[in-house]
Amino acid sequence: MRSKQLQAILDAKTKPIGALGRLENLAVHAASILGRTGKVPSASLTIFAADHGIAEEGVSAFPQEVTGQMVLNFLAGGAAANVMAAELGVPVTIVDCGVARPPPAADRLVDMRLGPGTANSAHKPAMSVECAHKAVLQGRAYGAAIENGIACFGEMGIANSSAATLLAHKLSAIPVADLVGRGTGIDNERLAHKQTILERAAARTGLLTPIEALAEVGGFEIGTMAGAMIGAGGARRIVLVDGFIATAAAALARAIEPTCASAFIYAHRSVEHGHGALLDWLGAEPLLDMDMRLGEGTGALLAVPIVRAALSLFDMASFADAGVSTSTADAS
Amino acid sequence: MRSKQLQAILDAKTKPIGALGRLENLAVHAASILGRTGKVPSASLTIFAADHGIAEEGVSAFPQEVTGQMVLNFLAGGAAANVMAAELGVPVTIVDCGVARPPPAADRLVDMRLGPGTANSAHKPAMSVECAHKAVLQGRAYGAAIENGIACFGEMGIANSSAATLLAHKLSAIPVADLVGRGTGIDNERLAHKQTILERAAARTGLLTPIEALAEVGGFEIGTMAGAMIGAGGARRIVLVDGFIATAAAALARAIEPTCASAFIYAHRSVEHGHGALLDWLGAEPLLDMDMRLGEGTGALLAVPIVRAALSLFDMASFADAGVSTSTADAS
Repeated sequence: MRSKQLQAILDAKTKPIGALGRLENLAVHAASILGRTGKVPSASLTIFAADHGIAEEGVSAFPQEVTGQMVLNFLAGGAAANVMAAELGVPVTIVDCGVARPPPAADRLVDMRLGPGTANSAHKPAMSVECAHKAVLQGRAYGAAIENGIACFGEMGIANSSAATLLAHKLSAIPVADLVGRGTGIDNERLAHKQTILERAAARTGLLTPIEALAEVGGFEIGTMAGAMIGAGGARRIVLVDGFIATAAAALARAIEPTCASAFIYAHRSVEHGHGALLDWLGAEPLLDMDMRLGEGTGALLAVPIVRAALSLFDMASFADAGVSTSTADAS
Repeated sequence: MRSKQLQAILDAKTKPIGALGRLENLAVHAASILGRTGKVPSASLTIFAADHGIAEEGVSAFPQEVTGQMVLNFLAGGAAANVMAAELGVPVTIVDCGVARPPPAADRLVDMRLGPGTANSAHKPAMSVECAHKAVLQGRAYGAAIENGIACFGEMGIANSSAATLLAHKLSAIPVADLVGRGTGIDNERLAHKQTILERAAARTGLLTPIEALAEVGGFEIGTMAGAMIGAGGARRIVLVDGFIATAAAALARAIEPTCASAFIYAHRSVEHGHGALLDWLGAEPLLDMDMRLGEGTGALLAVPIVRAALSLFDMASFADAGVSTSTADAS
């Protein structure tokens, strides 16, 4: 159904025209992605994890082994994304795209390893162009197979805000200085160091195609997530885009396959410095602004009940159904 | 538990300190209201409905009979609040505080009628001072008996944005012109007329006590909701404050019993013109900004899963539990 038809359905419901504001826009957008109204869809969360060679430049507040430790924490149900997902009734899958130390096989862990972490993009390409293609392709297949109507994508990877900054810079030409931020929480001194490293890494290459950009700067999880966004969007799933790193993946997905972007709903505005600039460049207006900067898909999760509530509006009674008088302004 | 202890618990969890931003503040606030962490509480919605004599001045876009028609719509499950509450698993109760034409008895309808609508406050007091006391008292008993840890309060009453404007003006001394708005959607001409009527009604009386203000301007549902907020807050329920009219009730509740305000969480910023000024006066920073202006508790409902997700954070693993390395910044 087209947006106009969907809005006309909402306009006949028992509420003043437009009184639910952005929730109505969201209902129309979400239903047009799904191609239907009716039963409100379920949601799932996939967390893509990988390590980054650029971590050895000291660009993160946390040591690299935290990526693998957090994967184990996800599998044990102890992370923020787990408890929030459990509260919201959303199942969680972890995809290992290339954590330095592979986690033991487990339920809800999917192996899509492309290596034991990317190479250090400060000095050389993070991965080969073939590997970048493979990341997007494997993500695409994964995303196309998601059964839930609402697909949340999160990520975990120490130093991946560096990769996301470089990728966003290469795709958008927004200066590195406007995209680089504190990630998990580095101080001013480390932030200045991170910016120096990233500007040097960015200068290593010139204009790049989207796949070349992914190959040059990484990461495995960002490329796989971008593929999943393309696959899920193509399968008419609502893609809930999380924070800065997921938004960089969304920008990559859009650059590779522009039509998929119509399936994207931006969940929240992160406090990570570069998110605002990247959202503006994408013309995106996220639903929530909670000063969050954790990743893992936590922002996307928070938006799930809002999307579901919006879609439930199509179940309302119309003025005619309910025998409610319309506005005297409308009647005149 | 005190806020500091609660924040210390969150700071030991497997996430960078403060990385969940306002969601952490919300978790601390919500847990301090409940006086505990642990099992995430359930929520309920109560919609207080009544009619307003001032409707005869032509201040609303809808005719007065819509109040009673919407009560029937609530009872039949067809309104926005119903479908959203159903989606969120939140039970809905309707309280008739004085709808002009009483609805037939029904499940989930509570009779707290104080009359067939208030008198027209443009010319005389909306109700007696005794009746205003009764509204607050009956609401208080109702609120104190709510079993759910999260109490959402909504309202329905044609012309109640006029009553809320006058009440907020009398309590805060914010000029009527800064509080008056379009309600369900009046045009510019009708808005100018509404402002003239309300300024005249406001000028009818001088400085008033909170109960006198309620008696002078109404309404039955606003006074009963204010009482319910006091009762629920006293019983350590989280009171989710909805839009402009509910915020006027919250201002009244706070004026009557200041301690209850610590239990209030402001759910959303309405586009109703006066809401921003009133929120500023109360020092409130709502969770959501969705350009909504429907009432019925729809904004409070949208905040329920966010509060519940916030409270779920206390179930996260700590760094020690999960064997995750802490920040090198913290370690240094």
